[in-house]
Amino acid sequence: MFVSHLECPKCSAKYEPEQRNQLCRCGSPLLVKYNMKKVAANMTKELVASRPPDLWRYRELLPVVKAENIVTMGEGMTPLLRLDRLGQRVGMKNLYMKDEGILPSGSFKARGAAVGVSRAKELGVKTLAMPTNGNAGGAWSLYCAKAGIKAVVVMPKDAPVIPRSECAIAGASLFLVNGLISDAGKIVAKAIAENKWYDASTLKEPYRIEGKKTMGLEIAEQLGWAMPDVLLYPAGGGVGLIGIYKAFNELKELGWITGNLPRMVAVQATGCAPIVRAWRSGATESVFWQDAHTCAFGITVPKAIGDFLVLEAVYKTNGCAVAISDEDTLKAEALMATVEGAFVCPEGAACMAAAQRLLSEGWIKPDERVVLLNTGCGIKYPETVHCDPPLLQPGDTLTVC
Amino acid sequence: MFVSHLECPKCSAKYEPEQRNQLCRCGSPLLVKYNMKKVAANMTKELVASRPPDLWRYRELLPVVKAENIVTMGEGMTPLLRLDRLGQRVGMKNLYMKDEGILPSGSFKARGAAVGVSRAKELGVKTLAMPTNGNAGGAWSLYCAKAGIKAVVVMPKDAPVIPRSECAIAGASLFLVNGLISDAGKIVAKAIAENKWYDASTLKEPYRIEGKKTMGLEIAEQLGWAMPDVLLYPAGGGVGLIGIYKAFNELKELGWITGNLPRMVAVQATGCAPIVRAWRSGATESVFWQDAHTCAFGITVPKAIGDFLVLEAVYKTNGCAVAISDEDTLKAEALMATVEGAFVCPEGAACMAAAQRLLSEGWIKPDERVVLLNTGCGIKYPETVHCDPPLLQPGDTLTVC
Repeated sequence: MFVSHLECPKCSAKYEPEQRNQLCRCGSPLLVKYNMKKVAANMTKELVASRPPDLWRYRELLPVVKAENIVTMGEGMTPLLRLDRLGQRVGMKNLYMKDEGILPSGSFKARGAAVGVSRAKELGVKTLAMPTNGNAGGAWSLYCAKAGIKAVVVMPKDAPVIPRSECAIAGASLFLVNGLISDAGKIVAKAIAENKWYDASTLKEPYRIEGKKTMGLEIAEQLGWAMPDVLLYPAGGGVGLIGIYKAFNELKELGWITGNLPRMVAVQATGCAPIVRAWRSGATESVFWQDAHTCAFGITVPKAIGDFLVLEAVYKTNGCAVAISDEDTLKAEALMATVEGAFVCPEGAACMAAAQRLLSEGWIKPDERVVLLNTGCGIKYPETVHCDPPLLQPGDTLTVC
Repeated sequence: MFVSHLECPKCSAKYEPEQRNQLCRCGSPLLVKYNMKKVAANMTKELVASRPPDLWRYRELLPVVKAENIVTMGEGMTPLLRLDRLGQRVGMKNLYMKDEGILPSGSFKARGAAVGVSRAKELGVKTLAMPTNGNAGGAWSLYCAKAGIKAVVVMPKDAPVIPRSECAIAGASLFLVNGLISDAGKIVAKAIAENKWYDASTLKEPYRIEGKKTMGLEIAEQLGWAMPDVLLYPAGGGVGLIGIYKAFNELKELGWITGNLPRMVAVQATGCAPIVRAWRSGATESVFWQDAHTCAFGITVPKAIGDFLVLEAVYKTNGCAVAISDEDTLKAEALMATVEGAFVCPEGAACMAAAQRLLSEGWIKPDERVVLLNTGCGIKYPETVHCDPPLLQPGDTLTVC
């Protein structure tokens, strides 16, 4: 056990890790703190390199105590791809994409689910509940099935439909709501209060973020324990961005990386940009975004409980926040597919559009090392692609223009 | 360059690898042969282990000559998962699944596309064409986009729809046909004859199989260079099974594995079972299957050009061929999701159903090491899952039965 305690980033209250903790009594999310001396004494770069290519290679920086509680489907060590053709096209010499579509359930949510569900199992959880914009619900339902935990999931009726199948086939209790994730969240909160279930909502348990953190650990390892200059992340709840920032700081504390952290960019949609609005005014928290709407459904989060942590990561790394129109997102999605063969999710495509914008504004320099986070595979979003192929009869001759 | 030549497994004719070869003049597919002494002198288990976790770690056993021609999206080293919960449920003590959903484009077709397209690029191909049941078309379209090769794809109108989006967003020329893959194949053959395109149809170029082969190399490496007892594979065109068999034989020749190869099982659907029918009668080739139909669309192949190679692998390893009903396939799909959290494709689920059948018949022993090939992720087949969740209004209370 390398965890020392749970700590509130707002009021600094400390909690025992062996109890089921949700939010701090002050209402803030809790973060996992490690005994870094013990970690340093037990984990080396060579040891990590010798382990299988999944996120459990960083087990000393993860909160699961007993190996028997690990619920894994081989998730992690997704490719960090150089996008040389695309970089050449848009004028970036060192463009990379971390492809989180190459994970069980086809999205980065598998990381949070693997670690979050493993730890929930370790804590003896029998039933958990969560609101979701789709992918997290799918991933948690599947990992819960493997763990023998009952999952209750509420998602907006307008969320992409494929994650519904994941929840259904995994045997989760799935509900739709005629509203946004914030409405789903209220329904879940009420049900949890009544039924005493474990609350697996974004940042309302401290372990999902530890799974997401491994994106940062992997990027560092894949770059030879060096840092990129810029990292672009599609921020809905923002857990991944907070997690990557936490990972980089832990690696600094271990002395595995040195120098500046990358400038972290929170990418949102013009139809739902509470973090961008807050960042523009220099605020440390966001305000609920009314009438949220974007084709990048995963980042339709009107008010994130961890907004202050996202903004802290952006401010402390001299990053920024950018809002992208759906039109630009869909253009970037097509560009990435036709030039790089990468069928990414709209949220990932928004990061590419943001990189192009920041390059044109001079905020990103052409030779800087830039990493895009593609948070999921495009095959979960067939509705974002126009497709109307001609129908032939057997024996027909085809004509290609 | 470790390739020595191309060889016909039917008439033993040899061909130069530096030319664009399609079928042998006798009509058979050609197989890639390597200079195994040179491979043995250059590749060691330790060297392989030190390389990144993708299929290019076996580059000495792959046909691409120059590294600059490699078109990669980080594909390979998919998880080989122990299914202990499921094994316990059905009475198998050593049940594994090779999860080929964890690949770019969400299916094992990415392997064939990565190697096939890389080699096509190396040979200077500008346009290629192929019939497909969906996933191969999606994968080849995306890899071709990255390679700057024009792809022409024809698929049955009843094939799953998500791969259409992959072809479309990659910029391929996509056509549907009001028939089966055999009808698509005839249309493609005619167009290729007229336009002098490269024929990327199953086994009509010799390199796709080399990509598929890496499934076998990985299984061997992941089992510590040992063999399972039984390997179940969903056979449509059968390239993967032929490839895995080829891989194991190459590893034997290198001395990296010893003893018996696993008994290889060709799994088909009762609605399209030409290989099973041939195997039952002891034939070495199959006969065209009339009125083919199954929910496992990827194996709706009425007559495979490599049928004799599939049957050879089955006969020589003392394997068998099994036909599974759609009902049993869909039951197995649900079982794998609820017990293991694995949302697999119907083709993968059919392998699980076949394992259960063979266990009940005593053909598989309870303690044998059994590997199922799951050839793709279930998220590409949402239509196989029944899902009708209740719709709540904001503020509603949810009730879980």
